[in-house]
Amino acid sequence: MAKEIRTIGVMTSGGDSPGMNAAIRAVARACAYYNVKCIGFYRGYQGMIEGDHCILNARSVRNIISRGGTILKSARSKDFRTVEGRKKAAEHLKKLEVDAMVLIGGDGTFRGGEIFSKEYDIPIIGVPGTIDNDIAGTNYTIGYDTALNTVINAIDKIRDTASSHDRLFFIEVMGRDAGFIALNTGVGAGAEEILIPEENLGLDRLLESLKRSKRSGKSSSIVVVSEGDKIGKNVYELADYVTDNLPDYDVRVTVLGHMQRGGSPTCFDRTLASRLCVKAVELLLDGEKNVMVGIINNEISATTFDVGLKEDHGINRELLRISDILST
Amino acid sequence: MAKEIRTIGVMTSGGDSPGMNAAIRAVARACAYYNVKCIGFYRGYQGMIEGDHCILNARSVRNIISRGGTILKSARSKDFRTVEGRKKAAEHLKKLEVDAMVLIGGDGTFRGGEIFSKEYDIPIIGVPGTIDNDIAGTNYTIGYDTALNTVINAIDKIRDTASSHDRLFFIEVMGRDAGFIALNTGVGAGAEEILIPEENLGLDRLLESLKRSKRSGKSSSIVVVSEGDKIGKNVYELADYVTDNLPDYDVRVTVLGHMQRGGSPTCFDRTLASRLCVKAVELLLDGEKNVMVGIINNEISATTFDVGLKEDHGINRELLRISDILST
Amino acid sequence: MAKEIRTIGVMTSGGDSPGMNAAIRAVARACAYYNVKCIGFYRGYQGMIEGDHCILNARSVRNIISRGGTILKSARSKDFRTVEGRKKAAEHLKKLEVDAMVLIGGDGTFRGGEIFSKEYDIPIIGVPGTIDNDIAGTNYTIGYDTALNTVINAIDKIRDTASSHDRLFFIEVMGRDAGFIALNTGVGAGAEEILIPEENLGLDRLLESLKRSKRSGKSSSIVVVSEGDKIGKNVYELADYVTDNLPDYDVRVTVLGHMQRGGSPTCFDRTLASRLCVKAVELLLDGEKNVMVGIINNEISATTFDVGLKEDHGINRELLRISDILST
Amino acid sequence: MAKEIRTIGVMTSGGDSPGMNAAIRAVARACAYYNVKCIGFYRGYQGMIEGDHCILNARSVRNIISRGGTILKSARSKDFRTVEGRKKAAEHLKKLEVDAMVLIGGDGTFRGGEIFSKEYDIPIIGVPGTIDNDIAGTNYTIGYDTALNTVINAIDKIRDTASSHDRLFFIEVMGRDAGFIALNTGVGAGAEEILIPEENLGLDRLLESLKRSKRSGKSSSIVVVSEGDKIGKNVYELADYVTDNLPDYDVRVTVLGHMQRGGSPTCFDRTLASRLCVKAVELLLDGEKNVMVGIINNEISATTFDVGLKEDHGINRELLRISDILST
Repeated sequence: MAKEIRTIGVMTSGGDSPGMNAAIRAVARACAYYNVKCIGFYRGYQGMIEGDHCILNARSVRNIISRGGTILKSARSKDFRTVEGRKKAAEHLKKLEVDAMVLIGGDGTFRGGEIFSKEYDIPIIGVPGTIDNDIAGTNYTIGYDTALNTVINAIDKIRDTASSHDRLFFIEVMGRDAGFIALNTGVGAGAEEILIPEENLGLDRLLESLKRSKRSGKSSSIVVVSEGDKIGKNVYELADYVTDNLPDYDVRVTVLGHMQRGGSPTCFDRTLASRLCVKAVELLLDGEKNVMVGIINNEISATTFDVGLKEDHGINRELLRISDILST
Repeated sequence: MAKEIRTIGVMTSGGDSPGMNAAIRAVARACAYYNVKCIGFYRGYQGMIEGDHCILNARSVRNIISRGGTILKSARSKDFRTVEGRKKAAEHLKKLEVDAMVLIGGDGTFRGGEIFSKEYDIPIIGVPGTIDNDIAGTNYTIGYDTALNTVINAIDKIRDTASSHDRLFFIEVMGRDAGFIALNTGVGAGAEEILIPEENLGLDRLLESLKRSKRSGKSSSIVVVSEGDKIGKNVYELADYVTDNLPDYDVRVTVLGHMQRGGSPTCFDRTLASRLCVKAVELLLDGEKNVMVGIINNEISATTFDVGLKEDHGINRELLRISDILST
Repeated sequence: MAKEIRTIGVMTSGGDSPGMNAAIRAVARACAYYNVKCIGFYRGYQGMIEGDHCILNARSVRNIISRGGTILKSARSKDFRTVEGRKKAAEHLKKLEVDAMVLIGGDGTFRGGEIFSKEYDIPIIGVPGTIDNDIAGTNYTIGYDTALNTVINAIDKIRDTASSHDRLFFIEVMGRDAGFIALNTGVGAGAEEILIPEENLGLDRLLESLKRSKRSGKSSSIVVVSEGDKIGKNVYELADYVTDNLPDYDVRVTVLGHMQRGGSPTCFDRTLASRLCVKAVELLLDGEKNVMVGIINNEISATTFDVGLKEDHGINRELLRISDILST
Repeated sequence: MAKEIRTIGVMTSGGDSPGMNAAIRAVARACAYYNVKCIGFYRGYQGMIEGDHCILNARSVRNIISRGGTILKSARSKDFRTVEGRKKAAEHLKKLEVDAMVLIGGDGTFRGGEIFSKEYDIPIIGVPGTIDNDIAGTNYTIGYDTALNTVINAIDKIRDTASSHDRLFFIEVMGRDAGFIALNTGVGAGAEEILIPEENLGLDRLLESLKRSKRSGKSSSIVVVSEGDKIGKNVYELADYVTDNLPDYDVRVTVLGHMQRGGSPTCFDRTLASRLCVKAVELLLDGEKNVMVGIINNEISATTFDVGLKEDHGINRELLRISDILST
C-alpha cells in the first residue's frame, strides 16, 4: 500500500519558462486545498542537494500567476548527476519528511527524476515546463505558447523596419533540437522561409525561394531560423552566404535570444500550468508515481517517463507546406 | 461531377474577431497558389447582396496577418434573411462567376450559408471566426485565443489596483451564451470566482465564497462574470447586491466591452486561421462542400454544418473545479 | 539648525498609479545609499495612524520597478482628516523615530501633508503620483504616461472593430476634473472628437462634427470622453442623444475604467519616479521641507505646496486645435 | 515676397522610427485642412531623384497613426550626395509643381536638405524622426520614446530569466554615437551598470561595480551597453573579459537589434509627430523655411539647421548618478 502523502516538494529545473510561477502556485494551492504541506526547493536539484528550501502556503504564491521566471529559481545541477549528489538530495528530503516530489522542467529534469526515483522510493510526477515544446508526452509544454507570442511580436516589429527599408532579415529563434518555435512563428509572422532542424531545406532551395519571392513582387523578406537548424551554417554565415549570392538583397540578422524565456505568461500557459499541476498533486495523493502529466488532445493525461521522453516529438510537417503556400 | 472551381469568393460576417485578416490572407494566397481567382465581398452577406466586392491577389493581402479587424469589414445582414436578399446575392455571384464561397464567421453566418447552399447550388465552406468559441465543430475558433489574452492583460492591470486598494472587482467579459472566455480567463487571471451561463452558482454561494476568501487572508478579489451569466442579475446589480450584503468589501465594476474584439492576433490564432483557410480552399478544389472546417484534437477536420452547429459546445466544467481549488 | 535625518518614512496615498513601486524603490535605495533608515507605511495615512509599517532596505524593493500597483498599498484615509487621527500618526512617527516623510500621491495627499507639517514639526516632501496629471507643480505626474499608453492600446483595439463594423464609439477615459488623458489619447489615437471638462464643445457642435466626418468619407468614428466632461450628459446619455439625432450612426460605448490605473510602468514613468524620489531624499537630507518635487521643462524642481497645488494646471488647448486639423 | 505654397511634398529618410506614419498622416491631413496638395515621395531622397511618388489625401493616411514603419518607405540615398542626383530631384519637384518639402528623418537627412535648399530655392522644414534622440534642436525625436519602451519590455523579460538563473546579462541597445537609449532604459529597467559612448567607465570600474553588486547580495545583474560605447570592446568582448575576470558570474549576451526600430508608436510619439508636422506645414504656409521643428521645454519650436545640428546634444549625465544610487 502506498504511504500516505503528507508533504509534497516542488522545484523548477532546467531552462526557465513563462508559466513556471503559475505552476508553482497551482502545486502550492492544491496542496493547501488537500491539507498537504508544500515545500519549495530552490534552483532545482541543486536546492534538494543543499537543502535550500522554503515553505509554500496558499498566501506565499499570491499574485505570481502573471509573472515570468520562477520564484524558486532554476538551474542545471551537475552534482545531481553523481551518486553522491543524489544521496544528499534524498537525505534532505527524508529530513524534511518530503513524501513526494513535483518536478517542473524539461526532458533533462525528467531523466534526472527517473533515475532518482529508481534509486530512492520517492514518488515523482513530472510537469513539462520548457519553451521548446520538445516533449513527446504532451502536445504543449508550459511556456511554449508565451514564447511563440514573444517571438511574433518581435518579428512584427522587425517586419515594420524590413518593409520600410526593403530588407531581408534572418531571425534566429530558440529551439536547438526542435523546430516548433521557428515553424509556428514562421507561419504566424508570415515569414517567407522557415529553417528548422527537422528538415534540411538546403542552401540552393533557400536561394531559389528568395529569388522567386523577389520576382513575385515582394520587396522585403523574413527568414525564421531555428538555433539548431541543420543547413550547416549558423545564422550569420547564412546571411553572408545570401549576401554573396543575391547581391540585390540588403541582408540583416537578429538573434532574439533570452527574451524568449521571459515575460508574463499567456492565458493558455497559465491555465495549462494550473491544470497540469492540480493533476500532479491529485495523482500523487492517489498513489500514482513516476509519470509525467501532459495535455493530449485537450485532455490532461499521465504518461510514463520512457514513453513521454521518446525521441520523436512529432513536429507538424504540414505547417511547412502551409508556409510554402502562404508565402506565395 | 463537380464543376471546376475557377473563382472563389470570401467574406467575413457577424461580430469581427482577431485573425479574420489572417484568414482572408490565407484564402487569397491559397487561391493564388492554386491559380484560382479570389474575390472578396465587403460587409459579409450584405456585400454579396449589393455586389460590393474587390479582387484579392497575393499582394493585396500583404502585411495584414498581424492586424486586428477585417479588411473586408463585417456586418450582420437582415436582408440576407429574406428570400429576395439571397436571390440578389446569388445573382451577383453568378455575374461575377464565383464558383464557391468561403464564409468566415460564427454560427449565425454558417446558418445563413446552410440555407443559401440549399437554395442555390454554390459550394460553401465555413471557417469559424468568433471570439466566443461557441461552435461545436471545432475546439477553437479564430480570435478566441487573442480575446483570452486581451482579457487577462486587462485583468492583470485591474489586479494591480485591486491589490493596492484591497478592493473587490466584478469584471464583465464577452460571451452571451457561452462561458468560454470567462472560464478560461478566470483561471488564467487567478480570479476568486467565475460566473458563467452554463452553471448557476447562485447568489448565496457567491457570498459564501467571498466571505471564505476574506477569512483566508485575501484582501482583494476578482470575480469574472460572463455577459450572459444566468444568476439573474447583470454585473452592476451583482455588485450592488454584494455591497449590500458584504459591507466590508469595497466593490468596483469594469465592463471590458469591445476592446475584446480587436488587437493583433496571437500566434495561435494566426496559424489556426492559416491552416483552416488553406484547408477550406483545398476542400473546395477537391469538390467538397457545405461543411465547416475546424481543429479537433490538433487535427484540421471538416464537419457538416448540422453537426458543427449543435447546441452543446462542450464547455470544460473541470475548469470550474480547478478554479475552486486554486482560489483557495 | 535642522535636525539630522536618520530615518525617512515613505507611503503611497490616494488613487494608485503605475510607477509608485518605482518611486518606493527609489526612496528605499536612496536611503540605503545615504545610510538612512527607511520605513514604509501601509495604506497611506491610514498606516501612519495605525502604525502599520515595514522596514525597507535595498533588497526589499528588488525587482519592483517594473510592477504596477504599490507594495505599500494605498488608501484615502478619513481618519487623517481629524485632529485625533493626525495626532495618532504623529505619535507613531515619533515612536518609530521617523525624522521625515516622503509622501507619494496626488493633490489630496499633498493637502493632508501640508496640514500635518504645520501641526507637527516633521519635514515632508511630496512626490506627484497620479494618472490624472492634474498637479500644477510638475509637467508630468508619475503614472500619467503609462495611463496614456494603456488607453491608446485599448482604443487601437476598439478602432479595429469600429472600422470593421462602421461604428461610432464613445470611449470614456479617466480624469474627473482634468482632461489631460482624454486630450492626449484623443490626439494619439486619432479620435474624431475629444470631450474634456476644460472646454465645453456643446452638443450641437458635436453633432455637426460627426456629420461632417461622415460626409468626408469616414465610415467609423471614435469620440474620447473624459469622465468629468462638462457637456451635461454622461457617456451613455451622450450615446443615446447621438443615436436619436444621427440615426445612421451605429453607436457603442466603452468605459475603460480601472485598468487605466494598473500595468507595468513605461520607461518614462520609471525614470521620472526614480529621479523625483532620489531628489526627494536628497532634499530632506539637505534640510529642505514642505515642498513637492516635480519636473518642469525637463529639470527636476521643488515647489512649495501652495504654488504646486494651485487650480490652473495648464492643459494645452493647442492640442484641441491639432485634433480638429488632424480629424479632417 | 514668398511664393504661394500650393503643393507640399513629404518623405521619410534615414533609419526608420516608430511614429513616422503618424508624422506622414499629420502632414497629409494638415495639407488637406489648408487646401494644399500633398505629394509623398518614396524611399526618401531616392524617390525624389527617381520621381517615385504618390498623392496623399486625407483618406490615404487613414488608420496609419498606430502603425510602425513608414508607408513612404525610407532609405539612405548615395545619389543625393552627388550634384547630379540633387539636380534630378529638383527637376522632379519642379515637374510635379512641389513648392516646399517636409523632410522627416535624422541629422543626415537634415544635412542633405540644407545643401539642397541652398542649391535650389525650395523651402524645406525638417522634422526629427529617429530613435536615437541625437538632435540638438529638440528635446525629443519621434520614435525615441517608443524605442525606450520596446527596450525596457525586452529587458524586463530578460530580467525574469536572469533572476531565475542568477545570471549576468550584457544587453546591447541602439545608439552608435549617443547613449540616450542606453542611459534611460538602464535607469528604467533598473540595470546594475550602464555603458554609454559619452562616458568611459573603464573596465576596472566595471569589474569593481559588479563585484560590489555581488557583495551587496544581488545574485543577478543587467548591464545595458550602447552600440557605440567607447570602453574599447564590443559587447561580446566585454562579456568574455568579465567571464575571465569574474568567474563566478554566469554571463550571457543579448543584442536587441532592429526590433528597436519597429512597433506601434507610444502615445507620446504619436502626439509629438502630430504636433511637429502640423507646425511644419503651418510654418511653410507662413513663408518660413530651412528650419527644423522640435519640442523644447514642452513648446513646439523652430531652429535653424546649423543650431539644431550642433554636436553636443546634451545627454543628461545626472542620470548616471541616479543609476549609481539606485543600483545600490
